[in-house]
Amino acid sequence: MATIDLYEAMSTLRAVRRLRPDPIPDDVLRRVVQAATWAPSGGNRQAWRVIMVKDQERRRRLGELYQRVATPFISSYSGRLAALPESERAQTEKMIRSGLYLTEHFGDAPVLGIFCFHPDGLAVTDAKLDRVSVVGGGSIYPAVQNFLLACRAEGLGCTLTTLLCIAEPEVRELLKIPQPWATAAAIPIGYPQFRGHGPISRRSVEEMAFTDSWEQPFA
Amino acid sequence: MATIDLYEAMSTLRAVRRLRPDPIPDDVLRRVVQAATWAPSGGNRQAWRVIMVKDQERRRRLGELYQRVATPFISSYSGRLAALPESERAQTEKMIRSGLYLTEHFGDAPVLGIFCFHPDGLAVTDAKLDRVSVVGGGSIYPAVQNFLLACRAEGLGCTLTTLLCIAEPEVRELLKIPQPWATAAAIPIGYPQFRGHGPISRRSVEEMAFTDSWEQPFA
Repeated sequence: MATIDLYEAMSTLRAVRRLRPDPIPDDVLRRVVQAATWAPSGGNRQAWRVIMVKDQERRRRLGELYQRVATPFISSYSGRLAALPESERAQTEKMIRSGLYLTEHFGDAPVLGIFCFHPDGLAVTDAKLDRVSVVGGGSIYPAVQNFLLACRAEGLGCTLTTLLCIAEPEVRELLKIPQPWATAAAIPIGYPQFRGHGPISRRSVEEMAFTDSWEQPFA
Repeated sequence: MATIDLYEAMSTLRAVRRLRPDPIPDDVLRRVVQAATWAPSGGNRQAWRVIMVKDQERRRRLGELYQRVATPFISSYSGRLAALPESERAQTEKMIRSGLYLTEHFGDAPVLGIFCFHPDGLAVTDAKLDRVSVVGGGSIYPAVQNFLLACRAEGLGCTLTTLLCIAEPEVRELLKIPQPWATAAAIPIGYPQFRGHGPISRRSVEEMAFTDSWEQPFA
């Protein structure tokens, strides 16, 4: 069983998109799934499931679907590149290159983790508000984050993607997902081709937090 | 800085609702927020913020709002109790007692972490599907889970709640949250009154995962 300090794992969890095709041992996959099961969920109902797709033909089909839905998305990013200030362009170009790589190699990851959820098992407390609903995700993505952190602990590259939801009907048919179960995330995992995980850059605590109200910066 | 093994933290992260009123040192709160910042988000846009409410009067008001929205919810659970099989009744009764305690003491936690998000910063890839949308939560709840795990590392009790979203207009006014930012979670944190975190019970890996398709159990 892999051991790693919690803060070390969190602060070095990168989106690793360049993966080796080498198989992942079953006991490693089991620990990654078990970590996901430990997450909290509304009423502790755990209304999510994960399909660990290893079968080559199904991965190839998922890769085709991903390429179909992701390519227009990446193109829209590329289109905005010229309008960006010089300082942001290099970072965005790197993200686009990495994203393009993923569109072409999604199905080459040795395992694709497809997270599913049951709509009736979520407590969607923001359903009646006049804005996009997000609370259903509160019973799914804590498990997804545990899954990613466990990959980090096990030395597996991984990246959280949600674009495949656009092709949900096709994914449902391919993986025999029964109604009304639906899809929430698709996570390619595998051992990294290069360095893999490492230090990440994020906004500072001061930019992300407040004390007592929105008018008072965190200090 | 607190050190704890990743799997140890995950597998002992309980919903701890009985909290002491003792203040939490600022450096501890900062580490909990920093852990949240490390989480992945759509396009790395980090379109969430957290308000750490320490002010007693604002906590009291949030506590009143929580009690108003949570009480009918708990009552509906109690109403279903008689219909449950004997085996599930004790567990559910315990959950109801704990939930009732929280409705009465929500504002007594020394800090309430209120997670907010910007709807335009999320990539909601399931917006057009004929089911509840969850993907927006994929850019928020990974950060929430990091926040909870960091609480665990720091010896802080905590529990993920989303019922306060029902009272979002009042919460917005109280905490001066500007439009179109919205609320996703409210997390009371504090040092535990009793044992606090510890072993948790969850469904097995076999119940939660499949290999290759929904028709093949994980093995």
